[in-house]
Amino acid sequence: MSLVIVGSVAFDTIETPGARRERIVGGSCTYSALAASFFTRPGIVAVVGEDFPKTTADFLKKRGVDLKGLTVVPGGKTFFWEGRYGDDPNQRDTVRLDLNVFRDFQPTLPPSYRAPDILFLANISPGLQEHVLAQVKRPRLVAMDTIRHYIETEPEALDRVLRKTDICFANDEEARLMTNEGNLIRAGRRLLERGPRLVVLKKGEHGAFVFGRDSLFGIMAHPCEGVVDPTGAGDSFAGAFLGYLDRVGNFRASSIRRAAVYGSVLASFTIEDFGIERFKTMKPADVEARFAALKKLVSV
Amino acid sequence: MSLVIVGSVAFDTIETPGARRERIVGGSCTYSALAASFFTRPGIVAVVGEDFPKTTADFLKKRGVDLKGLTVVPGGKTFFWEGRYGDDPNQRDTVRLDLNVFRDFQPTLPPSYRAPDILFLANISPGLQEHVLAQVKRPRLVAMDTIRHYIETEPEALDRVLRKTDICFANDEEARLMTNEGNLIRAGRRLLERGPRLVVLKKGEHGAFVFGRDSLFGIMAHPCEGVVDPTGAGDSFAGAFLGYLDRVGNFRASSIRRAAVYGSVLASFTIEDFGIERFKTMKPADVEARFAALKKLVSV
Repeated sequence: MSLVIVGSVAFDTIETPGARRERIVGGSCTYSALAASFFTRPGIVAVVGEDFPKTTADFLKKRGVDLKGLTVVPGGKTFFWEGRYGDDPNQRDTVRLDLNVFRDFQPTLPPSYRAPDILFLANISPGLQEHVLAQVKRPRLVAMDTIRHYIETEPEALDRVLRKTDICFANDEEARLMTNEGNLIRAGRRLLERGPRLVVLKKGEHGAFVFGRDSLFGIMAHPCEGVVDPTGAGDSFAGAFLGYLDRVGNFRASSIRRAAVYGSVLASFTIEDFGIERFKTMKPADVEARFAALKKLVSV
Repeated sequence: MSLVIVGSVAFDTIETPGARRERIVGGSCTYSALAASFFTRPGIVAVVGEDFPKTTADFLKKRGVDLKGLTVVPGGKTFFWEGRYGDDPNQRDTVRLDLNVFRDFQPTLPPSYRAPDILFLANISPGLQEHVLAQVKRPRLVAMDTIRHYIETEPEALDRVLRKTDICFANDEEARLMTNEGNLIRAGRRLLERGPRLVVLKKGEHGAFVFGRDSLFGIMAHPCEGVVDPTGAGDSFAGAFLGYLDRVGNFRASSIRRAAVYGSVLASFTIEDFGIERFKTMKPADVEARFAALKKLVSV
C-alpha cells in the first residue's frame, strides 16, 4: 500500500444556517481517503461499529479505497460528532461527541500496510499516531494533522510526533494554538522549527500556505459562491495533496505546488454538498477542469 | 495630468496593540498618491488647513505628486481621524473624527486636471464624487472607493457614481454592506451588475479579487510577519493599481493582473510602518523585488 491513512470514520450530525443533516458519514479518514482516491489507491486504518452502512463501505471500495485496515467492532457503535456552523463557515461549535468504538481504538496495521511510501496520520490522538509510527518501516514521507483538543491535552506527545513528521497540516486556528503566535506567517515558520520540512497552513475560504525551509507557496481557495457544508474541507485538502504526491512519486517543489492546488480543488468540491455526497457525483475530469481554472485564477 | 486622485488628506492618531502615534499625516489621497508615485506622476485634489506641514507637501512633491489641486484653507484645520486597531488588523474602530476644513470641501479641479486619462474618486462623499465627475471630460477610466459611512448615509448617490464607474474598489466589509450579500464572491458579482466593469475586492491579509464580466483574478497578500499599522493599505493598493495602469497605458487583462499584484505589493510596504513613513525609505527596486517575490509565491 503506497498511501496509508490513519484517522477517524464517523457519523456526523451537521447544522448550518441553512439546513441540518442527521448522522451522515464523515470522519477525517473518510474525507481524506476519498479525496486521495482521485489520484491513487489509498488504504485506510480506522474503526467503525456494526452500525456502519455497507453502502458506504462499498462506495469507498468502488472509489479504489482499500479497507483491509478498517476494523468493524461487533456490537459496537461508530464514533459520532455533532457540529454547528454559524454564518462564518470557518467557525464551528461541537454540540456533541460520542467516542463509542473510537474510545478503545488501538490501530493495528495489516502486514501489507507496514511499508507505505506515504503515511498520513490524520485526526487521531498523538499517542495513537506514535503507536502507528512504531509499526511501520520508515516511509518516504510522514504527514500529520491534529485538532484543538489534542493540542490542548497532549502537547508533549504532539511534539514528539511533529519531530518525526515531514509534512504538518494545520488550519490557522490550530497553527496559532500550537505556537502561541498570532501572526500566521510567523506561526508557520515556528512550526517548521519543530521538525517538519513542510508546513501546510489551511485558511479555509482564504486558501493555504505551504511553508518550506527555503520556500513559501500560497494558493487561494477556489472561489465558492455558496458553501453548503464546510466539514471535511481540510481533510480533503490533505488527502488530495498526499494522493497527488503518491501518484507523481516525487516531492519536488513543483510537485508540492501542484499538490497544494489539487488540495484546494478537492476541498472546494467537498464543501459544495453535505458530508461526502459531492464525491459521489464529481468526476476526474471535473477535478482537472477546476485545477486549470484555479491555476488561471492566480496566474500573473 | 494623466492620473488625478480626489480624496482626503488628514491627520491620523492611530493606536495599535503595540503602540500609539499622534497626529501623523494620512488620508486616502495621500496614501494612494504616494503609492501611485512609484509608477506615474499623479495630481491630487484635496483640502488641508494651515496646520498642514510643509515638510509633507515637500515630500509629496519630491515623490512626483502634483499639488496644484491641493487647497490650503487659511486659518483652517486639517481633517482629523483617530482610530484604534485590535489584535485583528482587519478590524478597527473610529475613536474620533473632526471634519474641520473637509466639512465645506467642494473640490474644484485646476484646468489642467480636467481631462485625465484616469480619475480616481477616493474616499470622499458620493455627492462630491459626482461633483468631480461633472467637471471632467470623460476619462478613459473612472475608479472609485468609498467607506461604510457613505454606504449607509448616501446609498442613492453612491449608486449613481457606481453607474459611471469603470473600477470599483471595496474591502470585504464594504462589498458585503453594499450588496447585502454575505458571500464575497457573490458580492463581487453583484457589484459588477451595478455598473463597473471591474470590481476589486480587497481582503486585507488575505489578498484581493479582481472581478471582471468574464474574468476573475485572485492575488494573495505579500506575507507579512508583523503588521505595524494597517492604515492606508487599501488606499495604497488602489493607488498602485491605477498608477501602474496609467504607466502602461492600456487596460488589457494581463495589465490588470499585474496592476493588482503591484497593488498588493504597495499595500504590503505601507503596513510595515506607521502612516506614510515606509514611503520615505522604500525604493523602486524594493517594489520590483517584492513584485517578483509575490509572483513567485503564487506561481503554480
